[in-house]
Amino acid sequence: MEIFDRLESEVRSYCRSWPVVFNEARGSYIYDESGRPYLDFFAGAGSLNYGHNHPELKSKLIEYLMSDSIVHSLDAYSTAKRDFLQTFSETILEPRGLDYKVQFPGPAGNNAVEAALKLARKYTGRETIVSFTKGFHGMTLGALAVTGNSMKRGGAGVPLSHAATMPFDNYMDGQTPDFLWLRSLLEDSGSGLDRPAAVIVETVQGEGGINVASAEWLRGLAELCEEYELLLIVDDIQMGCGRTGPFFSFEEAGIKPDIVTLSKSISGYGNPMALTLFKRELDVWEPGEHNGTFRGPNPAFVTGTAALNTFWRDDELQKATVAKGELIEARLSAIAEEHADAGAQVRGRGMARGLAFEREDLANEVSREAFERGLLLETSGPEDEVVKLLPPLTATEQELEQGLDIIAEATRAAVKVAQPA
Amino acid sequence: MEIFDRLESEVRSYCRSWPVVFNEARGSYIYDESGRPYLDFFAGAGSLNYGHNHPELKSKLIEYLMSDSIVHSLDAYSTAKRDFLQTFSETILEPRGLDYKVQFPGPAGNNAVEAALKLARKYTGRETIVSFTKGFHGMTLGALAVTGNSMKRGGAGVPLSHAATMPFDNYMDGQTPDFLWLRSLLEDSGSGLDRPAAVIVETVQGEGGINVASAEWLRGLAELCEEYELLLIVDDIQMGCGRTGPFFSFEEAGIKPDIVTLSKSISGYGNPMALTLFKRELDVWEPGEHNGTFRGPNPAFVTGTAALNTFWRDDELQKATVAKGELIEARLSAIAEEHADAGAQVRGRGMARGLAFEREDLANEVSREAFERGLLLETSGPEDEVVKLLPPLTATEQELEQGLDIIAEATRAAVKVAQPA
Amino acid sequence: MEIFDRLESEVRSYCRSWPVVFNEARGSYIYDESGRPYLDFFAGAGSLNYGHNHPELKSKLIEYLMSDSIVHSLDAYSTAKRDFLQTFSETILEPRGLDYKVQFPGPAGNNAVEAALKLARKYTGRETIVSFTKGFHGMTLGALAVTGNSMKRGGAGVPLSHAATMPFDNYMDGQTPDFLWLRSLLEDSGSGLDRPAAVIVETVQGEGGINVASAEWLRGLAELCEEYELLLIVDDIQMGCGRTGPFFSFEEAGIKPDIVTLSKSISGYGNPMALTLFKRELDVWEPGEHNGTFRGPNPAFVTGTAALNTFWRDDELQKATVAKGELIEARLSAIAEEHADAGAQVRGRGMARGLAFEREDLANEVSREAFERGLLLETSGPEDEVVKLLPPLTATEQELEQGLDIIAEATRAAVKVAQPA
Amino acid sequence: MEIFDRLESEVRSYCRSWPVVFNEARGSYIYDESGRPYLDFFAGAGSLNYGHNHPELKSKLIEYLMSDSIVHSLDAYSTAKRDFLQTFSETILEPRGLDYKVQFPGPAGNNAVEAALKLARKYTGRETIVSFTKGFHGMTLGALAVTGNSMKRGGAGVPLSHAATMPFDNYMDGQTPDFLWLRSLLEDSGSGLDRPAAVIVETVQGEGGINVASAEWLRGLAELCEEYELLLIVDDIQMGCGRTGPFFSFEEAGIKPDIVTLSKSISGYGNPMALTLFKRELDVWEPGEHNGTFRGPNPAFVTGTAALNTFWRDDELQKATVAKGELIEARLSAIAEEHADAGAQVRGRGMARGLAFEREDLANEVSREAFERGLLLETSGPEDEVVKLLPPLTATEQELEQGLDIIAEATRAAVKVAQPA
Repeated sequence: MEIFDRLESEVRSYCRSWPVVFNEARGSYIYDESGRPYLDFFAGAGSLNYGHNHPELKSKLIEYLMSDSIVHSLDAYSTAKRDFLQTFSETILEPRGLDYKVQFPGPAGNNAVEAALKLARKYTGRETIVSFTKGFHGMTLGALAVTGNSMKRGGAGVPLSHAATMPFDNYMDGQTPDFLWLRSLLEDSGSGLDRPAAVIVETVQGEGGINVASAEWLRGLAELCEEYELLLIVDDIQMGCGRTGPFFSFEEAGIKPDIVTLSKSISGYGNPMALTLFKRELDVWEPGEHNGTFRGPNPAFVTGTAALNTFWRDDELQKATVAKGELIEARLSAIAEEHADAGAQVRGRGMARGLAFEREDLANEVSREAFERGLLLETSGPEDEVVKLLPPLTATEQELEQGLDIIAEATRAAVKVAQPA
Repeated sequence: MEIFDRLESEVRSYCRSWPVVFNEARGSYIYDESGRPYLDFFAGAGSLNYGHNHPELKSKLIEYLMSDSIVHSLDAYSTAKRDFLQTFSETILEPRGLDYKVQFPGPAGNNAVEAALKLARKYTGRETIVSFTKGFHGMTLGALAVTGNSMKRGGAGVPLSHAATMPFDNYMDGQTPDFLWLRSLLEDSGSGLDRPAAVIVETVQGEGGINVASAEWLRGLAELCEEYELLLIVDDIQMGCGRTGPFFSFEEAGIKPDIVTLSKSISGYGNPMALTLFKRELDVWEPGEHNGTFRGPNPAFVTGTAALNTFWRDDELQKATVAKGELIEARLSAIAEEHADAGAQVRGRGMARGLAFEREDLANEVSREAFERGLLLETSGPEDEVVKLLPPLTATEQELEQGLDIIAEATRAAVKVAQPA
Repeated sequence: MEIFDRLESEVRSYCRSWPVVFNEARGSYIYDESGRPYLDFFAGAGSLNYGHNHPELKSKLIEYLMSDSIVHSLDAYSTAKRDFLQTFSETILEPRGLDYKVQFPGPAGNNAVEAALKLARKYTGRETIVSFTKGFHGMTLGALAVTGNSMKRGGAGVPLSHAATMPFDNYMDGQTPDFLWLRSLLEDSGSGLDRPAAVIVETVQGEGGINVASAEWLRGLAELCEEYELLLIVDDIQMGCGRTGPFFSFEEAGIKPDIVTLSKSISGYGNPMALTLFKRELDVWEPGEHNGTFRGPNPAFVTGTAALNTFWRDDELQKATVAKGELIEARLSAIAEEHADAGAQVRGRGMARGLAFEREDLANEVSREAFERGLLLETSGPEDEVVKLLPPLTATEQELEQGLDIIAEATRAAVKVAQPA
Repeated sequence: MEIFDRLESEVRSYCRSWPVVFNEARGSYIYDESGRPYLDFFAGAGSLNYGHNHPELKSKLIEYLMSDSIVHSLDAYSTAKRDFLQTFSETILEPRGLDYKVQFPGPAGNNAVEAALKLARKYTGRETIVSFTKGFHGMTLGALAVTGNSMKRGGAGVPLSHAATMPFDNYMDGQTPDFLWLRSLLEDSGSGLDRPAAVIVETVQGEGGINVASAEWLRGLAELCEEYELLLIVDDIQMGCGRTGPFFSFEEAGIKPDIVTLSKSISGYGNPMALTLFKRELDVWEPGEHNGTFRGPNPAFVTGTAALNTFWRDDELQKATVAKGELIEARLSAIAEEHADAGAQVRGRGMARGLAFEREDLANEVSREAFERGLLLETSGPEDEVVKLLPPLTATEQELEQGLDIIAEATRAAVKVAQPA
């Protein structure tokens, strides 16, 4: 491992929690180079909703590569892109009545967010973007300005501007009516908030600590946006592609955002790919006004198409996700009850779940103990106070139970370690 | 092609020049779905220096995927990443005496640039970045602020700040000594230029019109940076990986930048990957201070490693590139001479070459005529005034001659079309 | 009046409400050139707390000018400046136990605010300033960024940044606990609010609509600032110099701001002058780091000194102001009661009082009717929804009663005019 | 003097060069409290072009104050304002064929600059302002962004943006053609300079070191602005009101700026007052969109009117200023010749003159020696490398000779002190 220490920047992070070298992966399992298996409840931070190296996708990908089909074609037309668009339209947009245009903004989620913010500003002629406490949207300068985490913001090295932070759902524990503050600012011409171009929101904040916005709150937000002619951007990079059950995480709330960002699991196989979707009338881009080298990652289109065909032609996955989510919740609730004195609390929706602790550092300790027992788990929240569960949607009930058993054990062990003498 | 029109955003651009659907690709050729071959002198805007689907790289990639090796591992340690780091160190860094740390900043070139700018600002505690006329560094907000193109800047929707533009080499046709302006600003405490954190420069501006910085100018810039303690960032995304001959485009000048960005051809196979390299002492990142989902694209590491092993263990490719570059230059010079009355002019270094025209729209017309004759060519420069040649470094002399024959014909045809009656 | 129409910019405003040419002024009265008197309940927007051309101040000023004492001396030492400093220290700072340094930041209130913001940022090394809804701090770019009014903000022509707006006391009608939002943002490292340098607040918002911060709220704010090490700036430009009773408007709350701005009535005679006061340890300015031509307006020092000697060597003025304030409140309350159906409401503290109306445009109509009856009144609030009373502190009870009689009549007349048929 | 040390902020500066307390002033002389006279070659940094306490102005001012004419009237109409506008139109605008609207932007020069920048941005809908190396426009955030001095810029505490610095006339010693750089940036759509709203320039940079723009350069700048539809703002705060001979310093060049700022000597008596003038068609302000408390300083209008009547009804002052300027130049040239080895050099136009030294700290030493000999002189330039002469325009030849004798002596003494042993 000396080569990593010597050559790789100090910025590296996940490797610090999991000091092994990974080698293989299949379904819900990763293997280190000694062959030890790890049950993966992190799933590439939501990039592997269909598990590692799903055989259906894998065969399509290998077939594609074997036949010397085109890999890199910038934003030229390719058969792989056509297939993807066709399939995405048929399986996702049309059934949901979403008349969206599709932009390929670059390979990373932050590219999708940057394109969304640029388009919202260009379309409205306004600058300010409303974002929410604990929101996370990426590390490039535009995306970082709407991200809450102070450590990451500090990395910018310049003041971040043109954004205004507002309370996410239940941020102040019900001590104030929803949107009272934002609505007051919008309707008062003396409030000091310049009329925003758009609002950017996650329906469940993954990095922020698995904070769930209720359907009611989301509907309230959508109505507020409509009333004040603000564009509503849902950043569905982590919660989209079925993580909470339906393909888009906002479907439950019955809202139709003006702009949607997707990435992570959209390629289905862990390869870089991102989309920015927006209502037809917002498509005011000039040709080439936003560009980039990796806007047409054909192998990612191929696995993305295969994933849509495999999982989104019916509602089986969606139903299973909801059911498995309930299973996880039930098990976590039992664990939380057991550790009520550590301020344990369950959060989440679908298969994005969190176990939050009031006692400092406990979540990190749980994660460490779980790793020792062969389970990969990450923490989230600004103080790493939440154990975050993002298992593959394809994980079996048995795998989920196995992982939850480990979490139960790991929590008991962690609580003991953290105990004052 | 109806699906593209209906679903894909108006922002799409290359497809407008090449209204066919591509399907396969091998070496220097792309094929559309009717099977028509196109000689590719664009090579993914420099992302395919080793041609399409290089067999050596392909077999390593397929082998990797077949064996269920891990695809997505965020920034955890993987064997693929270790192999890449090891090989990059052995073939690139060590032989050149470059003691760089390696950051995996995300999959896109703009991620590499954003990380470079953030690090430069964090390290120095200053905000301003000096950039150069006609420079191009990406579409995310930080990278866009140091990019020259006004149409692309306008897409930001907010004023771009913390940057100062300076004349690139020979920008004012020798009417002023090199660095007179920048040096004056730096040494005058009343100049209005806040002391910059860094300078970001391309040694050959690809998007800007194949403008070449001389070795002398680059050395002058490096000296100026040292004198005033500014960090020197070379954005080698398009010109690195051998495009101008040596692996890094700055090697000829004998300089050692503080920070280097790489992307495009670093994965060797057209898959998204990027690197930010910097001197060891600059590695002041906190763990996770810059992050992102696709920082560990293992299949790209695999092909990247294979490319390094195949092409950079000796100096054959470098020598061949220089020789082929001379061939291209000679042929282009003849064409330019033939069209001196259209203000034709040859530019470039190694296998990054340009044929610039004074007569408006001629370059676009040449590109159109070439496409009809089965050659893919793009234009660059703020007014699309330059025909840009970026053939694969692996193109044979015969392929090069064939392409240049087409360019000669296409230019004649274009000049005729553009001719006033 | 043709010359004004022809030559003066359309930006002029007060003259539009009062289309006469003023000529003389004495005490609480202004006279137009036809000799018609107007009772002045505007008092230079709080610049004439001691009335127009107070005889004591006038004689000192004329004496000073007659003797060819120095008028303009930049920031050199002058006897007039020494007298002012001495007197200010004796009558204001020492009795209140305020160990402040005094900066002469330029002649205008906005200069005092700009100096305060610059110093707060320099001292803390942070950028963000917390300001409050409906706050008003001036028209220069730094001051405008912390001002709420959208029309005035729009005049900037550039996005205003490095500021965050927070709810002023009772902004949301008691539907949320004080400081819940600001405190949540400060203690949450994921909130998206970068740690602020300072908070800037008015104890009573004059331009914003005579909104009063309670003593309790101000103490809460001061405590919050202390807890999070933010500097507390009280902008006392309009409410200082005795407007609410005590010399500083924050005295009632028992707080000691880190920085205080004064202007308007500090010269006592309507001549431009401003002060920035700050705790001794904050005095980190370099010599000349903030400068300006009119930092040493000696005639203003002379009348300023005379005003301090005349009014602030005992507590008579303070007591009288409180008593007169109660008189005004009582009379306004009766008027408000009479017009409860127009949503009339009384606001204010000391001799800064407002009569707010829910019914649109009524306040402007009251002001118009009052002008016709010989009373100068202005409106405030972002929609001009409040009739604002700032009579000279030296106005007699009889003058106050006379003015309030006119307001009662004017309101009745205005309500009739505004009545739907 | 203890009170200054104890109470006044460390930001104070001129008083550090002249550690006495001034008391009286008449014409070209200031007196300290011991009665010692000082010949004043600083004249309030150009605020006292007509000397101290000019008897004509003084009698008008005292008469005005004695009669209880109105002192403070915000931006209401007053007879004093009408007289000023009438007289300014008759004596200044009409004879010069300038169809300007007049804005009273507040009492300080920076208010005039901030209003100019805001208006230029509002009118054009663009953000960037082009400023020049070593320019000085004020300490408020908007004005500071177009000011060159790095120490003063650093005082902002936030990055200064929306401005681009360009070389002032002869900045690079004739090594590059005028406007080559700026013109290149404007005509190149890939230059990285966003299309500017306006250019702000001083015809002679006072604070920047008495750097003179030639008439030819100013005409070139005006033509460039016209060609690219940029507004031309001449900041004539220090050089206007006759300092270089004609009332406006740009008259010699025969240009008509779009916007002009005036302050300093416009009131004629050292009282705060400022004007922003602009072409009629630029008057797009909304009523009250820029406001402020001290926009109607009537006593300053009175002395301003008297100054215009006394000095600008004929061309006597203008001619005398030019003649005296030549006298000064001749004497300074002799001094410079005597000290050629210290790199002495004469600069300036009219009665704004500078004696620049290459040898460090010499200018400050000259100023110190002059003070000891009873002459007030300041230095300017970013390194205080220039002795600056701004004597009252009304100084007699004898006074000028006397002052220049002192400068000759002081320079000799300073050179001796600075001499290495």
